[in-house]
Amino acid sequence: MSSYWQIVLASRPEGRPRLNNFRIEKRSILALPDGNILVRTLYLSLDPYMRGRMSDARSYASAVAIGAPMEGEAIAEIVESRHPDYRPGELIRAMIGWRTLAAIDPATARRINVGRAPITTALGVLGMPGFTGYSGLKVIGQPKPGETVAVAAATGPVGSLVGQLAKRAGARTVGIAGGPEKCRSLTTEFGFDRAVDHKSKSFAKALSEVCPDGIDVYFENVGGAVWPAVLPLLNRYGRVPICGLVAHYNGEAGVGRDRLPDTMLAVLRRSLLLRGFINSEFISEHYDAFLSELTPLVATGAIRYREDIVEGLEAAPAAFIGMLCGKNFGKLLVKVA
Amino acid sequence: MSSYWQIVLASRPEGRPRLNNFRIEKRSILALPDGNILVRTLYLSLDPYMRGRMSDARSYASAVAIGAPMEGEAIAEIVESRHPDYRPGELIRAMIGWRTLAAIDPATARRINVGRAPITTALGVLGMPGFTGYSGLKVIGQPKPGETVAVAAATGPVGSLVGQLAKRAGARTVGIAGGPEKCRSLTTEFGFDRAVDHKSKSFAKALSEVCPDGIDVYFENVGGAVWPAVLPLLNRYGRVPICGLVAHYNGEAGVGRDRLPDTMLAVLRRSLLLRGFINSEFISEHYDAFLSELTPLVATGAIRYREDIVEGLEAAPAAFIGMLCGKNFGKLLVKVA
Repeated sequence: MSSYWQIVLASRPEGRPRLNNFRIEKRSILALPDGNILVRTLYLSLDPYMRGRMSDARSYASAVAIGAPMEGEAIAEIVESRHPDYRPGELIRAMIGWRTLAAIDPATARRINVGRAPITTALGVLGMPGFTGYSGLKVIGQPKPGETVAVAAATGPVGSLVGQLAKRAGARTVGIAGGPEKCRSLTTEFGFDRAVDHKSKSFAKALSEVCPDGIDVYFENVGGAVWPAVLPLLNRYGRVPICGLVAHYNGEAGVGRDRLPDTMLAVLRRSLLLRGFINSEFISEHYDAFLSELTPLVATGAIRYREDIVEGLEAAPAAFIGMLCGKNFGKLLVKVA
Repeated sequence: MSSYWQIVLASRPEGRPRLNNFRIEKRSILALPDGNILVRTLYLSLDPYMRGRMSDARSYASAVAIGAPMEGEAIAEIVESRHPDYRPGELIRAMIGWRTLAAIDPATARRINVGRAPITTALGVLGMPGFTGYSGLKVIGQPKPGETVAVAAATGPVGSLVGQLAKRAGARTVGIAGGPEKCRSLTTEFGFDRAVDHKSKSFAKALSEVCPDGIDVYFENVGGAVWPAVLPLLNRYGRVPICGLVAHYNGEAGVGRDRLPDTMLAVLRRSLLLRGFINSEFISEHYDAFLSELTPLVATGAIRYREDIVEGLEAAPAAFIGMLCGKNFGKLLVKVA
């Protein structure tokens, strides 16, 4: 019998999640079913999409039930195996949830293959966030040499890769982030041509000044106040991959006038393309190319990434809540064991 | 010396255009320049995009200047030619504007070739509106057999063709129009599977009832109140070609809450594609196929269309104003001569 900790959804948040929407519990695994593996969580990934799972609004995935463990991908080590193909000591990643230990069917897991890169990259630049940036830019954004690519949440695991890949494709890159420290890292660490602070009062003006030729691709992964500043700058035939809208996940009612007509009219008048996506829709066609292209670039440092690691499963709720308002600086991970 | 009438933009409208935004004037052509042709307008096309030309907001085309003739495409007969390739009596279509007579460079005109169909079709189902519907559906909508295609302004020249082409592609078609008479014509005249009246108080409910499997393609050419009813019905990977937003051209301020987050979240969560377009961007690739496919279908009656013809150039302003609130029933034309 193995006991473990898990964090469950205690109640559905109204607006911004609070600590009391979560509850930590001790549980036990009595016996490992045949064909399963017992895994100990090493790192848990915290990602904005989890906010959606806390609500029961219609989405591409169903909601976490009240009382059920929060969903999440993790890196784990096999501690016991009742499957002939898996041995203790091997590392996998899987949707283990916010738990320190789990019995899982290994068919739902992937062995970690990050070459010489640290294993945590399997949850970030070489994992789901990285593939989100890679596939959205490749399939929808399609930057061309000389075009301007703007990216929101640009120090995050999706945005920082999008900026670097757009630059490698010959585009001029503009990163948007909150605060001077993050903005500095955009140009010094991630190679963006320009950085703009969305917390600045003159944000819209500053953005237009660093985009003298407009914006051809805007990689949308935040929503909120960035979009109205980007919209007037989008060039004819601009492309907008939309992979996240963290500013809207808490469901605060929009204030002021209805901004929808402005957006629809701009889409019409400038032949814009808006396309929402989730990385899973591109896996069968693009995942292998992603891993084979990116793994060596990450291992050699040609592609950079940044991680923000908090310690202990019990730290997950506060870290997650902070991430929803941009407190993290880099890919947010919880070191569990 | 030939005298003629023209209607000019007297002032820019605030909101809905009024008759005093237009002025009718008598003018003269003193001499026909070498290389030009003198043409007499037979039919003038009135189209919603013209509302955009009356304002000086940023768009894909520049505004009509105050005092300049209103823009518009027309069918005209050559009455005099100083170009070796053109002879009196030939019919052309060109951006002649709201005028009874014009001296134009024939390089800006196209000879009319509608086979056995009436010449007015060159301004409707076989002209710009028809090509808008054809190209938007083919390039962006891409309906598949068994999918549901919904079309707004479905008795109009764009929508009625979209419905018929979607049906021919094997889709189930739902037409949206205003009032019982238009709705009746959708099923009896244009072959839509179902019709829904957007003026009905239970419009959103009625729409959802006739779309039990959701909507895969929504052809947006009106905006306004139809979109919020369509949005919750759009299926994953739904496609939304946007070719017109007549409900927003008058620039009335949106009332109530900000609807933009709902739209963006739906785009994200259901991997929707929104793409604005103007027919001209698809001409080089698709126009020849459009004409060769559609001309025989229109001539034999396999593809149907409806025209709403008013008499006399002086009737154009009132007819145009009425069209902006859906008073026309079919492609609106002015019989000028």
